[in-house]
Amino acid sequence: MKITNIDVTLRDGGYRNNFNFSLDYAKSHARLSAEAGFDWVEIAYRNGSFSQTPNLGLTGRGDNDFIQAMSREIGAERVALILHPKNISAPDLPEMYAAGARLVRIILPPHNYESGLAFIRQAREIGFTVGTNFARITQWPARRIAEVASAATDAGAEVVYLADSNGSMSPSQAISMTTLIQSLTGQPIGLHTHNNLGLALANTIAGVDAGATWVDSSLQGMGKGPGNLIAEQWLAYLERTNLAAAQKLNLGALLELADQLLAAVPQSQPSLPLPDLVLGHYDLSVEHRKAILGRHSEAIATARSLSGAK
Amino acid sequence: MKITNIDVTLRDGGYRNNFNFSLDYAKSHARLSAEAGFDWVEIAYRNGSFSQTPNLGLTGRGDNDFIQAMSREIGAERVALILHPKNISAPDLPEMYAAGARLVRIILPPHNYESGLAFIRQAREIGFTVGTNFARITQWPARRIAEVASAATDAGAEVVYLADSNGSMSPSQAISMTTLIQSLTGQPIGLHTHNNLGLALANTIAGVDAGATWVDSSLQGMGKGPGNLIAEQWLAYLERTNLAAAQKLNLGALLELADQLLAAVPQSQPSLPLPDLVLGHYDLSVEHRKAILGRHSEAIATARSLSGAK
Repeated sequence: MKITNIDVTLRDGGYRNNFNFSLDYAKSHARLSAEAGFDWVEIAYRNGSFSQTPNLGLTGRGDNDFIQAMSREIGAERVALILHPKNISAPDLPEMYAAGARLVRIILPPHNYESGLAFIRQAREIGFTVGTNFARITQWPARRIAEVASAATDAGAEVVYLADSNGSMSPSQAISMTTLIQSLTGQPIGLHTHNNLGLALANTIAGVDAGATWVDSSLQGMGKGPGNLIAEQWLAYLERTNLAAAQKLNLGALLELADQLLAAVPQSQPSLPLPDLVLGHYDLSVEHRKAILGRHSEAIATARSLSGAK
Repeated sequence: MKITNIDVTLRDGGYRNNFNFSLDYAKSHARLSAEAGFDWVEIAYRNGSFSQTPNLGLTGRGDNDFIQAMSREIGAERVALILHPKNISAPDLPEMYAAGARLVRIILPPHNYESGLAFIRQAREIGFTVGTNFARITQWPARRIAEVASAATDAGAEVVYLADSNGSMSPSQAISMTTLIQSLTGQPIGLHTHNNLGLALANTIAGVDAGATWVDSSLQGMGKGPGNLIAEQWLAYLERTNLAAAQKLNLGALLELADQLLAAVPQSQPSLPLPDLVLGHYDLSVEHRKAILGRHSEAIATARSLSGAK
């Protein structure tokens, strides 16, 4: 089955360097990413992530001139952005399209998502390929996911993304959530997995076996906390198991890109931060990281108290 | 289902530091490992690994006095060693047992394994719990595995370990190999997975779902190349999904042990070496690493030529 791959390194990886990628690096990254076989390169958030931070870099703002530069580099048909409805207003989507973006993913919250639906409608009218993303999916009751996914589909969302932001999903949950939302909406399902528990690849394989057809990954897994599904591992798996995908992948270019990222962006170095494993294990969002941040002994104390409290 | 967990950090992790763990570290590691809930701590190879290297450290030799010290630390019922038949002679197994080891795993090659069978018989007579390990399982024809597993079982092996030494196994292979060897031998099946392709956890979950009941893992995944199944991730998964295992696990002690390892042994730092991903992708053993070792550009060139050659 055809898998649509999105490279989220520049966007989700931005949590590691406050989105401060240089324009030259971003252009070179996107070029190699396209050569490696990614269908879309998610170049940025539009106007910031969920919680606004100061000195936000290039890929945290998604300004028009950045979109233009990236679109000239790899062509509009590969340029994607993601956004929180609360961060944009009516002129944003037309400007993004005019600047040369063709995929937009609109993140819907579990409640008060109506403004997001309006932007989904607007994006479809403009001509975008439109996706909707649900964050921290493990914390949503199934009926919430069902309601919001149905509303988003009715509004025009063409792909429904399940994002395991806490990295606490299990393969069996990936299967059941994919099956639930796909049966309900009849739409393509996307998976965005994190590695707090090292399950990003296991969850993606399970979800794709259950019918998911869109997948986010990032080079070296560079992303929030312990990071995203590792692109080098995921595309290698696809190349070995999925003929449709294999035909368009270039693992040489992928390794070259990984090498370039490691050399250019120190924050891309893989690690297994123990506090994030605790977050994933107890399905806690990143806001709780402060409680177990810093010296591992604190994480251990927290883990022990949490274990004891069970 | 009860899962028997073996901590292979001191042994397989030794490939990162030529087995040079200090006795103090090894004792402290084993103590916390037992507290964390590991059933067995594999403390060493006996008389070296497959290819002999100079200046082999404590956990590469498995001398009698080291076994005695570790056995005094955690009790004989938790002390395991692994060995290649070509490295030992008749006195070794009795000495190991007398020194205080109770689990021995004997690695059988796909051909000329008869001497290994003799040691399996001897170990059982002495009173060891005896396992047999097949290395580089992905390179064995199924009929070889079937023949050697049957012979090992007849000789007295109580658990048959499938070791994906090249880290190139897929979850579907883990399921089929586990099913094949378990149906054939009726014995418990063990899994030893590597992370060249990031599939160690996915393969272990798939194999355990298919009936495997013994699992190797190491702290921070410290092991040959990109390393083994990561114990922190595997035991966390078990704790969340397997009641029988959860009851005896202490994730706080596990995190403390990971913290201690990272502080004491720099070679335990996780990484995603791209040459090893190429090895795993093309099911090449570590001897081929030289061809793609060093600067990543060489790995890229190799990957490209291999891709082109397909």
